[in-house]
Amino acid sequence: MPSYTAPTKDMQFILHDVLKLSQGKTPGYGDLDRDFTAAILEEAGKIASEVLAPLNPVGDTHGCRLENGVVYTPPGFKDAFQQMKDNGWPGIDMPEDFGGQGMPYVLGTAVGEFFSAANQAFTMYQGLTHGAASTILAHGTEAQKATYLHKMVACDWTGTMNLTEPHCGTDLGLMRTKAEPQADGSYKVTGQKIFISAGEHDMAENIIHLVLAKIPGGPEGIKGVSLFIVPKFLVNEDGSLGPRNGVSCGKIEEKMGIHGNATCVMNYDGATGYLLGEEHKGMRAMFTMMNEARLGVGMQGVAQAEIAFQNALAYARDRLQGRDITGPKNPDSPADPLIVHPDIRRNLMEQKSFVEGGRAFLLWGATLIDAAHRSGDAEADGLISLMTPVIKGFLTDKGFDMTVQAQQVYGGHGYIEEWGMSQYARDARIAMIYEGANGVQALDLVGRKLAQDGGKHVMAFFEMVKTFCKTAGETQGMAEFVDPLKRASKDLQTAAMYFMQEGMKNPNAALSGSYDFMHLFGHVCLGLMWARMAEAAQAALAAGTDDPEFHRTKLATARFYMARQLPMTATHLARIQSGAEPVMALDAANF
Amino acid sequence: MPSYTAPTKDMQFILHDVLKLSQGKTPGYGDLDRDFTAAILEEAGKIASEVLAPLNPVGDTHGCRLENGVVYTPPGFKDAFQQMKDNGWPGIDMPEDFGGQGMPYVLGTAVGEFFSAANQAFTMYQGLTHGAASTILAHGTEAQKATYLHKMVACDWTGTMNLTEPHCGTDLGLMRTKAEPQADGSYKVTGQKIFISAGEHDMAENIIHLVLAKIPGGPEGIKGVSLFIVPKFLVNEDGSLGPRNGVSCGKIEEKMGIHGNATCVMNYDGATGYLLGEEHKGMRAMFTMMNEARLGVGMQGVAQAEIAFQNALAYARDRLQGRDITGPKNPDSPADPLIVHPDIRRNLMEQKSFVEGGRAFLLWGATLIDAAHRSGDAEADGLISLMTPVIKGFLTDKGFDMTVQAQQVYGGHGYIEEWGMSQYARDARIAMIYEGANGVQALDLVGRKLAQDGGKHVMAFFEMVKTFCKTAGETQGMAEFVDPLKRASKDLQTAAMYFMQEGMKNPNAALSGSYDFMHLFGHVCLGLMWARMAEAAQAALAAGTDDPEFHRTKLATARFYMARQLPMTATHLARIQSGAEPVMALDAANF
Repeated sequence: MPSYTAPTKDMQFILHDVLKLSQGKTPGYGDLDRDFTAAILEEAGKIASEVLAPLNPVGDTHGCRLENGVVYTPPGFKDAFQQMKDNGWPGIDMPEDFGGQGMPYVLGTAVGEFFSAANQAFTMYQGLTHGAASTILAHGTEAQKATYLHKMVACDWTGTMNLTEPHCGTDLGLMRTKAEPQADGSYKVTGQKIFISAGEHDMAENIIHLVLAKIPGGPEGIKGVSLFIVPKFLVNEDGSLGPRNGVSCGKIEEKMGIHGNATCVMNYDGATGYLLGEEHKGMRAMFTMMNEARLGVGMQGVAQAEIAFQNALAYARDRLQGRDITGPKNPDSPADPLIVHPDIRRNLMEQKSFVEGGRAFLLWGATLIDAAHRSGDAEADGLISLMTPVIKGFLTDKGFDMTVQAQQVYGGHGYIEEWGMSQYARDARIAMIYEGANGVQALDLVGRKLAQDGGKHVMAFFEMVKTFCKTAGETQGMAEFVDPLKRASKDLQTAAMYFMQEGMKNPNAALSGSYDFMHLFGHVCLGLMWARMAEAAQAALAAGTDDPEFHRTKLATARFYMARQLPMTATHLARIQSGAEPVMALDAANF
Repeated sequence: MPSYTAPTKDMQFILHDVLKLSQGKTPGYGDLDRDFTAAILEEAGKIASEVLAPLNPVGDTHGCRLENGVVYTPPGFKDAFQQMKDNGWPGIDMPEDFGGQGMPYVLGTAVGEFFSAANQAFTMYQGLTHGAASTILAHGTEAQKATYLHKMVACDWTGTMNLTEPHCGTDLGLMRTKAEPQADGSYKVTGQKIFISAGEHDMAENIIHLVLAKIPGGPEGIKGVSLFIVPKFLVNEDGSLGPRNGVSCGKIEEKMGIHGNATCVMNYDGATGYLLGEEHKGMRAMFTMMNEARLGVGMQGVAQAEIAFQNALAYARDRLQGRDITGPKNPDSPADPLIVHPDIRRNLMEQKSFVEGGRAFLLWGATLIDAAHRSGDAEADGLISLMTPVIKGFLTDKGFDMTVQAQQVYGGHGYIEEWGMSQYARDARIAMIYEGANGVQALDLVGRKLAQDGGKHVMAFFEMVKTFCKTAGETQGMAEFVDPLKRASKDLQTAAMYFMQEGMKNPNAALSGSYDFMHLFGHVCLGLMWARMAEAAQAALAAGTDDPEFHRTKLATARFYMARQLPMTATHLARIQSGAEPVMALDAANF
């Protein structure tokens, strides 16, 4: 049976040895010392392993069920949700004013990885609530905050995001759902939304839908979209629940994975809605939380890769098959464990170096979000905005790939559902799609973020890498990590330069290379994280760590990433430099 | 709803313009003129589109059902199977002596792609029968052939291959199933086999299991394994069915995909079996058909990529979302079709160039198998043996990747089962595993095939590429295709040389790079096929083809492969040259 153990040691290493959290200037970071985060991570890891992970295959097998408009979650989900609420996990990084624990987002990200790894479908119920609550927090009136936030922070009420309609996903300007103003200042919302995760279920008293819709007579297209709060049950003045609103779940989708999460078709039939933020500024309001939401999806990529890796590793150590080519490792047994075979190791090292590097990248990103939100650090905000599509696109693509590689370690046993490896791949697949499909991330990166504020943020990124390489490069033994990073960063700069020059003449020259650029950027970021981790590991070894094997393993894994993964930047660059012609040559009819 | 149209035009182009089939010296090839193959392909394409494809989602949704030892296939499968039999498709390339049509294997491969694309799970029933019948044909006594082959060629009786046991897959030396000799020359077979595709079902009168087992007292390990024919119903002297044999299906597996094919746990309880081939030479007998079987699995990779590509392309043309960045293509409509966007094209071109290149590679491989079997051409046999792991490993890895990319074109609609894209990815996933997991293919390639017969076959491969480049390079306009192929081939040679030099000292240095080598080799083969297709397209254009768009499209697609896919060889080489150290550094305990 699949199992999950929270990687608390690795998390602590990244938080403290690499990111040096408690030395950070961001408000709230001073409290995050090693013992404090250890206690939080241990508790979170426990509930992830003991409560959420055992329900993961249950959710996959049973799925959700729609009967007479009611969605029933899989057996055990309700109790587990109650346990999560009782322990205050949903509000860990929400303001204390609304019943949260007020901790930094980086800590929410750290525990979020554990929860997502243990049970992605389950964790989405609270994840979406977090997103919806954050949006109300940022754009709601005081009255709206007072009405909804306490309940949502506690997950007594959950939240949803309603964007997609049958005929439009990425291109929301085509939206048809309309919101008609009423005399009392409310709106009547009418239309159909699809792919609404957690749109209906049996784990909360109320569901607060955030719905994008058009107010008739407003501007055409995307500029005429507004955001509305549409509660499942209307809320009385005293906070008690009033009558059922005109919103209902018409269908739940059969999906490739995340069966434990109800993906709903939501029908709005003149439902009462309340404007959230300004008229016609709905996209802006919805997207305020985008960096966070997309980082959260990137985290799912790493999380599924982590649990898949853990199980693949256990299987590779346990399963006896074949002999070490250099001589039996297990002479008393009829065969050696799989892990003796070089190609199994190659596979496992790819997984390990991705998961640990990706985790560091995510947590670093989360510290930038904290700096932006808690300290108003504009540079951090610019940097994380730039890197958000990379975090989302690269980490979910690679995360999925790694679940597939993990499955491969099991041979035929990886393909049957009994061993659980199929679920990780099927669940991980969605993260490449939702919250902006990865092709859209690449477009956002190359078409928007790269040139944002005159290219200031990408220049800052290159400067940062350069400074790191210069400083770290002076430390003895760091050249083997810094040199490959320099080369990779140079490939990225060359690609960016190519876009600037060619993109002026022909935007397709840049956009044809956007996906490769996103991956190139991702490799440079993971290369940077591995160099930083190597630096931290060397420092720990020099200082006489009491866990030298852990730190030596970090160095070996960093070497693997540099030698085996980072060379990919050259191919991405070559593809980019081939320009638009190979991609755009055909007429649509000739494909 | 998903649909499928057989790519007959492309198939004809490869068979006649590229491979020049009817000019071939192989016996039987003279009959394969353009009109003849067109007629066959058209008929096969029709049954694939009209009969098999509509049953593909049915099979996925309903799956197989085990009740009281009987396996029920999905609704409609039985009738479709009868239609396939009535039209003689299962025996298309089997000997006329046993009721087949005696056509070359290359034609069986061409129509097999159509059937597999339209319905992989269904087509496996006849595919496995083909494999089992071929093995009896190669190793059976005259009496055995007379007893089984007519029925199997007609698919009145189907066949299976029984290798895997719960504790052993790749390492069959650990096998426990035993076969005890009886006084009458038969054996009593006892043991459990798992992952037996089509092990039990309701579409045939009898099922002929080929079972690997050990005769007590024989040599240890893999050298003591023999092959047995174990019929579900014993066969009387007059060919009629006798009593039920001691073999039964204990369970069918829940799998990620190919739900329409019953994957069975088969229990042998003193079942009567008949030795096939020689005692203790079971592996050799089972593996005689390996090149064919593995090419058949490689074909599944291409086939699933083809149907996924067809549907992704249709969706990309149909779905209106966003605007062409260089100006609206569809000004009267609120949005342009997806296919205007460069990254969607990048994705589609990757699919297209893989599918068409992979198809050519497969068909070329099939002509080598024909040359080996029909003409006893030892060079062809050596070359196809060398390339078999590449065909199987590379085409199934990439085939799966392409189904995932095709799914991505659909955004959220790709993730829900309704649109069918999930099934292609889930079905394609198995091909990377069965018939030797792809890591084992890489091991076979680098650990065995590369140095086979003193490295003669790989040298012949390089010589062939060199000769092609020299000859084709002299044709005007071919340099843009030949030059990248030369560079890629040089990377492959450098890698092979590295293995020879370093592998002597440390076999792990070669095996750590085996997977990359398999992919590097695959890219060179597809590069070669694209250069050959470009040459054929240029020739057709020069000769005044009546379908210039088709041939110009071939050239554009060839350019794409050269510019965007072939550069990958450099990264594979860099990974290989990093040697064993990054891969092997860690103790198993430190992962």
